[in-house]
Amino acid sequence: MSTLPHAVTVVEVGPRDGLQNEAARISTPDKIAFVNRLSLGGLHEIEVSAFVSPKWIPQLDDAGEVFAGITRQPGVRYSALVPNMHGLERAIGAGVTNIAIFLAASETFSQRNTNRSIDASFDVYREVASAALGAGLRVRGYLSTAFGCPFEGDVPFDRVVTLTRRILDLGAFEVAVSDTIGVAHPGQVTSMLPRLLEAIPPERVALHFHDTRGMALANVLAALECGIATFDASAGGLGGCPYAPRATGNLATEDLVYMLNGLGIDTGVQLDAVSDAALALVPHLGHALPSRYTQARPAP
Amino acid sequence: MSTLPHAVTVVEVGPRDGLQNEAARISTPDKIAFVNRLSLGGLHEIEVSAFVSPKWIPQLDDAGEVFAGITRQPGVRYSALVPNMHGLERAIGAGVTNIAIFLAASETFSQRNTNRSIDASFDVYREVASAALGAGLRVRGYLSTAFGCPFEGDVPFDRVVTLTRRILDLGAFEVAVSDTIGVAHPGQVTSMLPRLLEAIPPERVALHFHDTRGMALANVLAALECGIATFDASAGGLGGCPYAPRATGNLATEDLVYMLNGLGIDTGVQLDAVSDAALALVPHLGHALPSRYTQARPAP
Repeated sequence: MSTLPHAVTVVEVGPRDGLQNEAARISTPDKIAFVNRLSLGGLHEIEVSAFVSPKWIPQLDDAGEVFAGITRQPGVRYSALVPNMHGLERAIGAGVTNIAIFLAASETFSQRNTNRSIDASFDVYREVASAALGAGLRVRGYLSTAFGCPFEGDVPFDRVVTLTRRILDLGAFEVAVSDTIGVAHPGQVTSMLPRLLEAIPPERVALHFHDTRGMALANVLAALECGIATFDASAGGLGGCPYAPRATGNLATEDLVYMLNGLGIDTGVQLDAVSDAALALVPHLGHALPSRYTQARPAP
Repeated sequence: MSTLPHAVTVVEVGPRDGLQNEAARISTPDKIAFVNRLSLGGLHEIEVSAFVSPKWIPQLDDAGEVFAGITRQPGVRYSALVPNMHGLERAIGAGVTNIAIFLAASETFSQRNTNRSIDASFDVYREVASAALGAGLRVRGYLSTAFGCPFEGDVPFDRVVTLTRRILDLGAFEVAVSDTIGVAHPGQVTSMLPRLLEAIPPERVALHFHDTRGMALANVLAALECGIATFDASAGGLGGCPYAPRATGNLATEDLVYMLNGLGIDTGVQLDAVSDAALALVPHLGHALPSRYTQARPAP
């Protein structure tokens, strides 16, 4: 394991990707407190919310208020997902300086998730990314269903490479190659990543694993060995993808950081601060946190 | 990952290590059916029960009846845990031909778990192993708390090497080096195993991980890369260790096999047959199975 990176960037997606899949309504003050705790816990990249239609994700209909309420820490980037120009305008109006755009590797998933084809999404996002970059914003991309689609099954690997390249060509600084339904396993990671990295430098690739089948950390380990040093995770293991049948659970930030600490890889993240941030939501969630690390913590 | 083994032996410990930690009483016929389903699912090493005091593990007080009731498949080894000579005699009386003995790497854990010191356990097991080998039985060893102790914390690594060697010297064909409380992480596995393997050939080392902090599969991946090819797992993720505070969950056999399948490593195990075997117990357990693979299976 001599080739492992010395430091890893953890992209915290709990407030957005986590909460959007929680059935219980979380209040705006609780969301603000959650983001503030995460930023004080050493997370430097936090996806705070999404400027999407409230009909689409009711939980995140207070994105503007959350951005207005958080205490911005120096050196922390707070981002928002945007689906289109209208979302971008709302985000800019809320003072957002980092946006995320999301495309799918599966045509069927793209249609069902966003009601538009992959190419139509690129058309929309070409304008969005151009406007965002012109306004001085940073743009991050997601490529969902990159390891498998709930409707189509296997996704051709060449398509993942091509689409990752196309998202970067929109002006994204990195693409989070995402296992939306948690089917990826280390064998797939190990066969796929070297081919992806022939076309794209590792510093422009993040990985976004779901722990649906318990593979997320093994996948991270395999990806670290391929030179990837940016991983998405969700505090407490909150969330998942509401559009993927039976998909459950982002990789928990605490579980990821526990493993990275053990590997001697620096993240700057304070493990128990993140765990505490997620635990503070439990009275409102109606269920225990999926994070294994947090479940195993001694009772206070 | 060119150094990964081509095949892995999965040692199924669900009927013993799994069930002993389940609060609900499982009937003898249900246990027999469970073992039979596992053996038909391609598992060739099954730890069926334990010949210990019923006061110690009430769930396993029917070990003799279970052994009498199972349908033995050719090529499948059915084993039982024994704590002392009396247990060995009961096991031999029940026609058992494979036993497991268990020692701890932590003095405090040994005292609390078995009410005797590590050295006293070796004294007992020297006689047990000698008698077992003399009677033509196979002996497998466990070394518990090898990655950390709930009472003592860190366990010196040299002690793990020394004790593994001592267990093999009793006549055991292999030692399952065990993370009883699920604290091991891949960094520890990667730093520890090469040192252990300087002293002991890899084919005499198995690893027994608990998924308490979600690290089990990442640990397996790290161990595979070190050349280990035998892993313990529990169908459905049943069980844990009742003596370790807050320890939960053996590694689920299904989750392990899903990952190994993805890595192209042969196990001979039929994934859904194992999942079905564990699912058949759910009406009696009072809780869902921890296995992430089984949780993610489509409803029938």
